[in-house]
Formats: sequence, C-alpha cells, structure tokens
Amino acid sequence: MSEKSEKLDLLARKIYDSLENGEVPALDLPTRTRENIVLDTLSLVWKYGSTKTTRSATSLDGAEYILKTLYLIDFIKEMYSVSKTSTLREMYYISEGWGHAKFHAQEESNMLAEDLEVITTMLREELSLRPEENGASIIGDITIEEKNRKGDFKKINCRDDVGDGGYNIPYSVETDKIRLIGTNAKFILAIETGGMFDRLVENGFDESFNCILLHLKGQPARSSRRLLKRLNEEFKLPIYVFTDGDPWSFRIYASVAYGAIKTAHISNYLAVPSAEFIGITASDILNYELPSDKLTDKDIQALNAELKDPRFQTEFWKQEIDTMLMSGKKAEQQSLAKYGLDFVTDTYLPDKLGAVGGGR
Amino acid sequence: MSEKSEKLDLLARKIYDSLENGEVPALDLPTRTRENIVLDTLSLVWKYGSTKTTRSATSLDGAEYILKTLYLIDFIKEMYSVSKTSTLREMYYISEGWGHAKFHAQEESNMLAEDLEVITTMLREELSLRPEENGASIIGDITIEEKNRKGDFKKINCRDDVGDGGYNIPYSVETDKIRLIGTNAKFILAIETGGMFDRLVENGFDESFNCILLHLKGQPARSSRRLLKRLNEEFKLPIYVFTDGDPWSFRIYASVAYGAIKTAHISNYLAVPSAEFIGITASDILNYELPSDKLTDKDIQALNAELKDPRFQTEFWKQEIDTMLMSGKKAEQQSLAKYGLDFVTDTYLPDKLGAVGGGR
Repeated sequence: MSEKSEKLDLLARKIYDSLENGEVPALDLPTRTRENIVLDTLSLVWKYGSTKTTRSATSLDGAEYILKTLYLIDFIKEMYSVSKTSTLREMYYISEGWGHAKFHAQEESNMLAEDLEVITTMLREELSLRPEENGASIIGDITIEEKNRKGDFKKINCRDDVGDGGYNIPYSVETDKIRLIGTNAKFILAIETGGMFDRLVENGFDESFNCILLHLKGQPARSSRRLLKRLNEEFKLPIYVFTDGDPWSFRIYASVAYGAIKTAHISNYLAVPSAEFIGITASDILNYELPSDKLTDKDIQALNAELKDPRFQTEFWKQEIDTMLMSGKKAEQQSLAKYGLDFVTDTYLPDKLGAVGGGR
Repeated sequence: MSEKSEKLDLLARKIYDSLENGEVPALDLPTRTRENIVLDTLSLVWKYGSTKTTRSATSLDGAEYILKTLYLIDFIKEMYSVSKTSTLREMYYISEGWGHAKFHAQEESNMLAEDLEVITTMLREELSLRPEENGASIIGDITIEEKNRKGDFKKINCRDDVGDGGYNIPYSVETDKIRLIGTNAKFILAIETGGMFDRLVENGFDESFNCILLHLKGQPARSSRRLLKRLNEEFKLPIYVFTDGDPWSFRIYASVAYGAIKTAHISNYLAVPSAEFIGITASDILNYELPSDKLTDKDIQALNAELKDPRFQTEFWKQEIDTMLMSGKKAEQQSLAKYGLDFVTDTYLPDKLGAVGGGR
C-alpha cells in the first residue's frame, strides 16, 4: 500500500479506535481565520497560530462532519486504485450517493478538502483533488518536463515549443508531474491580467529583459503559486508581482509573497516572502496621472480590512493603503496605455524594476 | 499601402467628402438587435436583416460618434505601421488623449470596434484589436502551424507536443497566424466547462473516440468559434457541443451553431449550422435523475426570451425549453459524476453521440 493510502488509513483508524474504546470521536484543527495567522519568523511566511477548533460527534453537525471525512477518505482511496483525480465539483456531486454524508453546498465540500489537507498534512494534489480550471500560463526561456497521461515525461521549452498563448500550467506542478530542467532567465514577472500578459508578450519583454512571464489570472491558483515557489527555490530566480492598483490586487501580491489565509497550512509550499510588488500603487495613480475609477464601498471596506491584516503591517503597505483611501482612486495596469502601447515596457517596468534592484 | 489600410482610408474619405460638399456626415449600420436578425437560407446562419440605424452629425452624440470613428481609424493605422495589436481595454484607455472623442465607458469602445467591423467588412482581428484574454484550449490529434512573434511558423501537434493543459488558442486564428496541417480525428467535441474538459482528458476520451476536445470556456470567444468553423470547413469534421443544462448553455450552443446576435455580421466566418447539441437537456435531468438546481427568475426570463429568439424556433428546442420551464430545474454537466467519474465517457457521451449519428 502506498504511503498516501497509509496516511488516510491512520486517520480512519483513529476514529475507529475512539468508537471501539467507547469514546466520542473528535478531530482537532487549527482555526482557519485571519485572527489565527501568525508570522513564522524562520520562513517569513504566515501560518496558522495555536487556536484550535474541535469537530466532535457530540453534536449532529460534528458527527456528520466525521462521517463525511470517512466517505471522502474512501473516495480518495478508490481514486488511488484506478489512478484518477476528481475536480472539487465532481466530488461534491459524487456525495449524492453518500446518504447522511451528502454535502449540502460546494463550500462545504471544498472546506472539507482543505481540512483534510490540514489533518493529514498531505497536499490537495496528493489527495487527487483539483480545482475547476486554471488556464494560467507562462512564456519565457525555461525548459520543463511534464509527465503526460501515458506516464512519459515530455520536454517543453516555454518559449520555443509553445504558441503565443504560452505553456498552460497544469493543476499539479509537484515533482512527480513537472520537472524543472533549466533556464537562462534572470527573474520572473508575475502579471495579474491577461491583457497585460499579452502586451508584454507582444512587446517582447521576456526577450529584451531576459525574464519569464507568468499570467496570474487574478487571484492565482495554487498551482501558479506553487510553480513560482519552485522556480524561486530551484533556480534562485527573484519574483516581481505586477498587478492592478486596487485592494484586491494587493491581496494577490500578499498571497504570492506571504501566503493566503485559507491555505496558511501550506504557506511553506506556496509563499515566496522575497517577492517584490511592482504593481500600480496609489502613488503611481497620482504621479503618472493614470485614468482611474472611484473606490467603491466594498473597495474601502477591503482596504480597511487590510490595515488590520497582519500581512500588511509594513511601512510601505500602510502608507500606500492610506494614500489610496485618501485619494479615493484605483487604477488598472492597462491604464498605462494612456501613454501608448509601449509605455509599460519602455518606461514603467524599467523604472519600477530599477527601484527594487531588479531588471537587467 | 496595404489593402487593410486602404479600406480604412476609404471610410475616412467618405466622411471628409461629406464635409467638403457641405453635407452632414452620416454612417449607416444594420440595427444590431435580436429583432433584426434573419436566417440566411443559403448558409443557414443568422445574419442582420434590413433595418438600419443612422449615426448622423445632426446630433451631438452622432457627431462625437463620427469623431471617435476617425480617431479609431487613426489609431489602427498607427498600429499597422509598427505591427502591433491592442486589447479592447487598452484602446479604451488610449482614448484618454482623444479630447472630445474620449470613450466614456468600455461598452462604448467595444461597440464601436464591432461597428467598424460592420462598416468596413473587416474582421476585428484585421483591425488589430483583441479581447482581454481567451485561455480556451484544445487537445487531440491535430497538427497546426502557428506564426510566432519572430514571424516563423512553428509546427505543433495538439496531442503530442503539449501538456495535459492542451494547446492555448491564440486571439487570432486566421490563416496568416494559424495553418491547419492535418488530423486523424473523426469529430470535434466542444465542451463548456474546464472541469469536464479535464475529465475527458483524464479519461482519454480523445484517444478512445478519436476526436479533438475543445474547451469553450463558457460563452466561447470568437477565436474558439472561428477555429471550430475552420476545422469544420477544412477537415469536414462534424462538431458536437457538450454543455450544462440551463438557458445560458443553450445560448452557447446557439452561438456556435447559428451565430451570436452581437456578431451576426460575421456569422459566415463563425457559425457552424451543422453543429449538434449533445449537452444536458431538460429531459436528461429527469431521465438520469441528475442533481439539479431550481431555476432562478433570471433563468426563467432567459428561457422565455429564447422561446421568442428566432434561433430557437425548432421542435427540439421549443420542447426542451418548455420541459425545463415545467420542471423548474437546471443541471451542470459535472452532475453526471453522481454515477461516478467514468459515467460520462462510458455511458452518457456514447449514448448521446449514437443518438445523433456521431461517435466511433
């Protein structure tokens, strides 16, 4: 039996033993909220703190939670035996046949999948579960090997062997699926929007600045963050994050650099604390006189929440968030087109990269 | 000067001549609404009818419209001269410098880009304008050549030369960018969601049924529809559309098969009237007892609108829409997972393909 299967069996046995011994079965989990994330001073990423939540069969909810966990373990072991994976949505529908363990909403099944990661210390990818779709891509001089459906590793250079759309990042980029072979690039630029990614591709920024472009596609999927982490660790490539200038984009940066609240149990695998923000700031909007939109009530709420978020307690962020609240303005990265299609590659990015010590 | 440039100059000259002759400049366009689409009995796709809208400089709005058209022509000619393209978003921001011709919202600039297609009978791709992002992909045994940024054609087999994410469809798939070299596939399956696309890839459906899988990614981008059209025309491959079972998915099928209302001026380039619907129907939801959701008020409105839509006036659609309204239920394609991860490839699709005469 595989090591993965054994870990799952251990958990099932723990619950079984409780019942055998006449105890009420229970599972302990770190509380997964913003209030319970703390900076790990060794790795400089944010992780869950010591507050625990207990799911115990003393309540009906707790009992159903444990039942669902057992059904899920059974489903995952079944997938192992036929080498299949399942989307989170499929797993939700599969539970139709689980009687009392049927999920009532997809948020519930998604949450349990993450809880199971926390409890077993396995990655969701190891549990054969994957998100709906990714669609994020990279382009640039990096050679990888991807294991295809037949089990063969196929070598792909993400500049020479792909079209202008780049290489599609698969849902799992762990070493059993993706091997990083080599690169001549000097850094990685992670870009929020597809429009800007395409602009940098068309302007040949990856070639003139000898870098890899990665399309984050909004709040990045785990596989995109994991790939950034591996590129940073295995090739020592610095990472620069280029986003829109609004509170949601600041969170995109934070999840790349410090880890996300929902995935704080695997920040070590995903977060790159040295990643630098070179997205649109509140000061850029004013200095470059960028076309901007008024902050909405939701934007203002989000900015105020960030002022309390442990991940944003640096001078830089406090000042930028205050400036944005004061000016009441946000702007998109594509608003740089006000000065023409080349302004971003001729002026904005070289300036920003220079300021943080990156670039050529 | 290129033929494309000449077409744009002709339009500018027309407006200039009006002014020279002391006439009020005006532009005539077919009215772009559902009420003004008619079935072209020769090509079996839906096109604009004879109702016209006139934009004339007798009103301030009309005068600004003509001014914006001239600025846009100028911008496109500038892009021709440096071999660049622009996203629709960038074009919106570029207009910041156009004084009175500045766009007030992106809907306005998007609409003008489409109007310019209608007036000049050029494709948006020929006007060097592109949408934000696509991210749709295909996988299967088809060999293409894509012209890269350096102007070289690069050969790619969309089964052997790509990862599990497939080949990313670029924004333009016209012959100057993409050449279709060869295929052994017998048909194309166009799939609405990424989760289902990944399921069919994992289950090896493209290999066991010798077909090409194309991820529509919701309402398909023009480039996805154009690629389907070219695959259908150049390789005589039949197209089957596999979607969720709800009114929005019916529209996805309609846009592939009959053309979309907004792009009825280029239905000839995009629509494949022979495309067959094998998505989830109202009858499937009942017959397979699929997990379903209640129709929302918006869903019901959309279904009622479809009953009046000229594209849905067939016995099949009238009956399915009525059944859906009566049952009050919709379902996703992934709900087939109720019967396990292989049900869709072992049972559902073979049954459906058999019923429409497709498949092996």
